[in-house]
Amino acid sequence: MTDIKQLSQTKVFEGYHAQYSHQSSTLNCTMQFAIFLPPSASEDTPVPVLYWLSGLTCTDENFMQKAGALKLAAELGIAIVAPDTSPRGDDVPDDPDEAYDFGKGAGFYLNATQEPWNTHYQMYDYVVSELPKIIEAEFPVTSRKSISGHSMGGHGSLTIAIKNPDSYCAVSALAPIANPSNGLWGQKAFSHYLGEDRSTWSEYDATALITQRGFDKPILADVGTDDSFEAEELHSQIFLDAAKAAGVDIEFNYHEGYDHGFYFVASFIDDHLRFHAKYLLAD
Amino acid sequence: MTDIKQLSQTKVFEGYHAQYSHQSSTLNCTMQFAIFLPPSASEDTPVPVLYWLSGLTCTDENFMQKAGALKLAAELGIAIVAPDTSPRGDDVPDDPDEAYDFGKGAGFYLNATQEPWNTHYQMYDYVVSELPKIIEAEFPVTSRKSISGHSMGGHGSLTIAIKNPDSYCAVSALAPIANPSNGLWGQKAFSHYLGEDRSTWSEYDATALITQRGFDKPILADVGTDDSFEAEELHSQIFLDAAKAAGVDIEFNYHEGYDHGFYFVASFIDDHLRFHAKYLLAD
Repeated sequence: MTDIKQLSQTKVFEGYHAQYSHQSSTLNCTMQFAIFLPPSASEDTPVPVLYWLSGLTCTDENFMQKAGALKLAAELGIAIVAPDTSPRGDDVPDDPDEAYDFGKGAGFYLNATQEPWNTHYQMYDYVVSELPKIIEAEFPVTSRKSISGHSMGGHGSLTIAIKNPDSYCAVSALAPIANPSNGLWGQKAFSHYLGEDRSTWSEYDATALITQRGFDKPILADVGTDDSFEAEELHSQIFLDAAKAAGVDIEFNYHEGYDHGFYFVASFIDDHLRFHAKYLLAD
Repeated sequence: MTDIKQLSQTKVFEGYHAQYSHQSSTLNCTMQFAIFLPPSASEDTPVPVLYWLSGLTCTDENFMQKAGALKLAAELGIAIVAPDTSPRGDDVPDDPDEAYDFGKGAGFYLNATQEPWNTHYQMYDYVVSELPKIIEAEFPVTSRKSISGHSMGGHGSLTIAIKNPDSYCAVSALAPIANPSNGLWGQKAFSHYLGEDRSTWSEYDATALITQRGFDKPILADVGTDDSFEAEELHSQIFLDAAKAAGVDIEFNYHEGYDHGFYFVASFIDDHLRFHAKYLLAD
């Protein structure tokens, strides 16, 4: 069994928020995650889990502190788990320029294949396999889970769900990087983590994946019309077109005047929680 | 008229959050504040204002980002203004040790009388007079206002309201420093800002003020039972006893298991917004 070490525990909305560290065998480093447990969670009444994947530069803290999600999650009876966005520590290689869009804080939820990144940057396996095993062993939760995220985390939630449709009850994304092979952030990350052979990139590109595989689970995405990253980084319209062409029944909303930031996430997170609750809590 | 300069504007919950800087004639430095305007605010339908005073180390950003207050404020139709917690800039003297509990980020919402602090540290006059004048001149708001705050900001909200009962429709506080003359934070700040003559301290001590003056406006306070600062810094029980002894009709709640942090604020901020709305929006 993995040893996890509690770093903090704080009562919030009658449930609690806690942070833990553990030695990740997938990432070969010490990782930190945050969990919110609603007041209804107990060994006798375990609750389902929403995994939240954050965007570039974030840690386990940003979503829990800024999204305003915990009140409704407490009411609905859903746990939320927020992992970090990359491996961490002095042994983990980083962007030589310490840029915000690659290396630490920018793991892109993939399994790197290229030196020197492949030793630690295995966030796909961490989120899909190692972390849920720990959560389900250590906390009063069921095996029912769903996944959501923002920006790079929306890329992560979409790609992970499309590749693992049986593992998640539903998927959603806010302002996702939805066609990373086509954007500067994605191209920088993929060329380093996966190499220059672009045929390998489609395994981590939501637009390519949904075209190849389709998707038959509930899927929701929201984007602001004033998101300054849409045209060059997110390409959510390309993803939406691909989803429709693949016959996927996607709920996709543009929101007039909203930008890319956390106030956009906060404004629509309750819609996402209610969406996930519908499937996580279904009989 | 004061020139104010917009630093950001972001749509949130159909209203908007914005930050401004301006040259403060009270504080003799450039100051920054944040404002949330609900979607109902317009020149034809101005809205009342809740002034929020933050705690030690905070800026105009912490409450807006972390409290989760904007959703309900948007629904209720209340503007929120969050000033910074001290004067700022290279010309402003700071704690020689850059401690978190004195100097920048720790203005204690008072008018300093002692050198070298008295040139800039005049947060009381800034919050009571200069800032509302700017807000009422520049934004679609009415002159109806109330005031709330957390920790050092709860000290600020209580002392300002008790000294200006005709200016505010209501006052509330979360985990306020309620008897600062009796705590280490307050004693450090007051001895530097106001001098060693303790008779001057009572002008900025909520417990002394409510004993001397009473208070006949609506007043609400919440404190967590696991607040590690209660025993040596907050002294909320002493304040509650003084309020009762002065015949003040105070609503005061202890919350089992909550601590001093922002998750406590988030858990109860909606109660405070509804409390203020009852009086701000009354005919």
